[in-house]
Amino acid sequence: MSAAPSRPLPLREVSRWDAEHDVVVVGQGVAGGAAAIEAARAGADTVVLERMTRGGGATALSTGITCFGGGTEIQRACGFEDTLEDMLAFVKISAGEQADPERVRLYCEGSLEHFQWFRDLGVEYKPSFHAEKTTHPFTDDCLTFSGNEEAWPHCAAARPVPRGHKPARKGEAGGFLMEAVLQGALDAGATVVNECRAERLVVADDGRVAGVAARRERKPFCAKARLGVVLSTGGFIFNEEMVARHAPQLLQCNYKVGTEGDDGSGINMGVGVGADAVNMDEGLVLNAYYPPESHLKGVLVDGRGQRFVNEDSYLGRTSDAILCKADGLAYLIVDDEIYGRTQAFHKRAAVEESFEDLERALSLPPGALVETLAYYNRFAEQGEDPLYQKAAKYLRPLNEPPFAALDCSTANSIFGVFTLGGLSVRASGEVLDPDGTEIPGLYAAGRCTAGLCREGRSYASGLSIGDASFFGRLAGRRAAAAAPWE
Amino acid sequence: MSAAPSRPLPLREVSRWDAEHDVVVVGQGVAGGAAAIEAARAGADTVVLERMTRGGGATALSTGITCFGGGTEIQRACGFEDTLEDMLAFVKISAGEQADPERVRLYCEGSLEHFQWFRDLGVEYKPSFHAEKTTHPFTDDCLTFSGNEEAWPHCAAARPVPRGHKPARKGEAGGFLMEAVLQGALDAGATVVNECRAERLVVADDGRVAGVAARRERKPFCAKARLGVVLSTGGFIFNEEMVARHAPQLLQCNYKVGTEGDDGSGINMGVGVGADAVNMDEGLVLNAYYPPESHLKGVLVDGRGQRFVNEDSYLGRTSDAILCKADGLAYLIVDDEIYGRTQAFHKRAAVEESFEDLERALSLPPGALVETLAYYNRFAEQGEDPLYQKAAKYLRPLNEPPFAALDCSTANSIFGVFTLGGLSVRASGEVLDPDGTEIPGLYAAGRCTAGLCREGRSYASGLSIGDASFFGRLAGRRAAAAAPWE
Repeated sequence: MSAAPSRPLPLREVSRWDAEHDVVVVGQGVAGGAAAIEAARAGADTVVLERMTRGGGATALSTGITCFGGGTEIQRACGFEDTLEDMLAFVKISAGEQADPERVRLYCEGSLEHFQWFRDLGVEYKPSFHAEKTTHPFTDDCLTFSGNEEAWPHCAAARPVPRGHKPARKGEAGGFLMEAVLQGALDAGATVVNECRAERLVVADDGRVAGVAARRERKPFCAKARLGVVLSTGGFIFNEEMVARHAPQLLQCNYKVGTEGDDGSGINMGVGVGADAVNMDEGLVLNAYYPPESHLKGVLVDGRGQRFVNEDSYLGRTSDAILCKADGLAYLIVDDEIYGRTQAFHKRAAVEESFEDLERALSLPPGALVETLAYYNRFAEQGEDPLYQKAAKYLRPLNEPPFAALDCSTANSIFGVFTLGGLSVRASGEVLDPDGTEIPGLYAAGRCTAGLCREGRSYASGLSIGDASFFGRLAGRRAAAAAPWE
Repeated sequence: MSAAPSRPLPLREVSRWDAEHDVVVVGQGVAGGAAAIEAARAGADTVVLERMTRGGGATALSTGITCFGGGTEIQRACGFEDTLEDMLAFVKISAGEQADPERVRLYCEGSLEHFQWFRDLGVEYKPSFHAEKTTHPFTDDCLTFSGNEEAWPHCAAARPVPRGHKPARKGEAGGFLMEAVLQGALDAGATVVNECRAERLVVADDGRVAGVAARRERKPFCAKARLGVVLSTGGFIFNEEMVARHAPQLLQCNYKVGTEGDDGSGINMGVGVGADAVNMDEGLVLNAYYPPESHLKGVLVDGRGQRFVNEDSYLGRTSDAILCKADGLAYLIVDDEIYGRTQAFHKRAAVEESFEDLERALSLPPGALVETLAYYNRFAEQGEDPLYQKAAKYLRPLNEPPFAALDCSTANSIFGVFTLGGLSVRASGEVLDPDGTEIPGLYAAGRCTAGLCREGRSYASGLSIGDASFFGRLAGRRAAAAAPWE
């Protein structure tokens, strides 16, 4: 796979259209699915070109957790008060320092309506709170803290309220959510063409995007877009050359999160017609040393036996810290009382009866781990963490031998990863060139854009599906409202 | 200033050439100066367009230290043995993980010849070793350790040999070096046009770069390039919009290193004709808490009172660590014996008679600094640093009160910075598009390219002047050897 822009096909070289529609959506993950629904509902003759045998994208492989707030019926039923202001504060800090304030505002202001939109599609949510901090809830409970809500320094910047909403299906519910979105597109009257891989944009001499050149069953398939093309092709974590070029630090991670479709093709098609790609060096990194939640009472140390992050942070933040602050080498120290197997199968690098023996077994600098743990225990006893402000509920001394070190190193544990960079896009969906000028006829949403959340270290679960679906809807609507080029 | 590509001027819109030459070099820092000399010496009618009243660029403002090795006359006279293999190992690790191996190899293999090239231009070097670790040698001594040679982990990967060569002038000698380079261009027969600001490349319909559209004394000035244009315009640290877009973390730094010409204009001109820009998120960050060298015996701690890097690393590495590992908040703890004023005027955040009082004065977590220093002292007493492997010669316990904390935080001390990203260029100078295809007629060297060193944390002084001059020469030669477009 190439990291290079895909040169467009000049309109004058198109001899025949295999399909003609108002709006052509490329890729039917949750962004493309939402775009197709809205474009079709707005009256546009809409087609979705999906490279796989069936749509779903990365969302179909996920928990389905989506970030909604501002006082959803579920939040209220579970006894949580949420306000637009609280949600704005949370999404702002979670979206990261490079976030687009306009996107943050629109997302929060539209959240209650957006939640209802999913429910109207038939996605069910149970009015129940899943209290345990986890990454993959096994139950059909709905509401969870899905990011750094309760962890310092986020908890100081925004009042902690759970906003992760999981559909009412046990385990991973992203497939269920996507079934509703796929059906929604059909119900709205959109046409879906599967096993159709978009390769190039078709561009008129004046720069207007006029359609998509694809391959279907090994034959060329040209789809005219009278009003506009919406790119919703996913990120680029499966394109190693692109990752090496734009975000080489992510190559340390050994488990790509997404589908093979996340190969950057939409980004490269957009850049090929002059679009700007931004935030390309950022990604979300995921080393899930919890659940069990008891592990948050453990102590994460680097190769010098020193702590480097509060262990109760969302795993996007702790994993970024393992990469950047601990140089990829880290152990979670637990005692017998809090030890449990992780879902990600962390290995025990050592199990010993004393801190001294553990330190020796891990070949850490002499005395370093012992001193770190003694310091930690001394303050944990008082419910304090003067170094990293871990929440009091996770503070207790480690004092039940044996003590184990779970290996959280990049070399020996699972580091999931996906990308957070892509096409520069207005919140309303128009793709922009480096001057900030719209590329006529081109729209985009989802992971192929630089979207709502720009930093893995601030990320919260639910921001990707939330982002892609919300801004996918806007992009679909905008494309449907465009003037025809003919 | 814009972060957007500069649209080229179509050749057919050029009504008149104000100058016609074989090779047009844009910018006369050390890269452009070297390119002009080599192009002219190769027989090409060469012109340099320099926006300032006189050439010099960032090099003229620098120490003039250049990285040469493999056994220069100076190295030998000072009693140091160096080999190509040793130099390759050092330059490889210093150039960083994203380095171009071809560039590293060419640079090292050509180093002795390149050193002689400077001497032939009249740059004098004194056969003397400046033993004190410093950033700005005040004497006219020549040879210095100018990077991480003696610091862990570099010292384990490459045998430490000094390769920083400073011209024989007291203090900052970059101006002296540049005078020789400027004179060299005139001696070689190149024309120099000062106060001439290049704004756009001139491009033929087939994509060939044919010249430069500039402004001189507020009037348009179009220079035809029969063979090629060499961009050598410097980096982009003075273009805040570009920094915000490509390397936002560098905005934490408060002192731009370079000239106002480092505004990214050459990068934007190149990208405007289809060039690729790479490594754009990297920069060199410089917080100079030494000299005095005695400060390397100090202990650098973060806001938790913990160490995070070996203090005897080159300042590019320690400064990167202050930003990335210490979140921008750091203190250098010194005792009375090693305390000295830094050239960068670090403030004393606190001066106290005991570690306990110092910790309290700095509002560090209770006991954290005290334990860090006790641990450090315990092992320093034995000449060991089990945490960060600081060299034994800098290890002694801090035990002479009063103790001071020098503020090395981004908020309260000088953080110099320049960029390390730019046009994608073959080692021989051809500018490449994202497909890796040459852009006909366009060449580049120096800080407007992604050059020899790609990472601030691995950088060594002398790699920028070395890179820019060496590959500037190659670019000039390659342009002079191109086929004319007419």
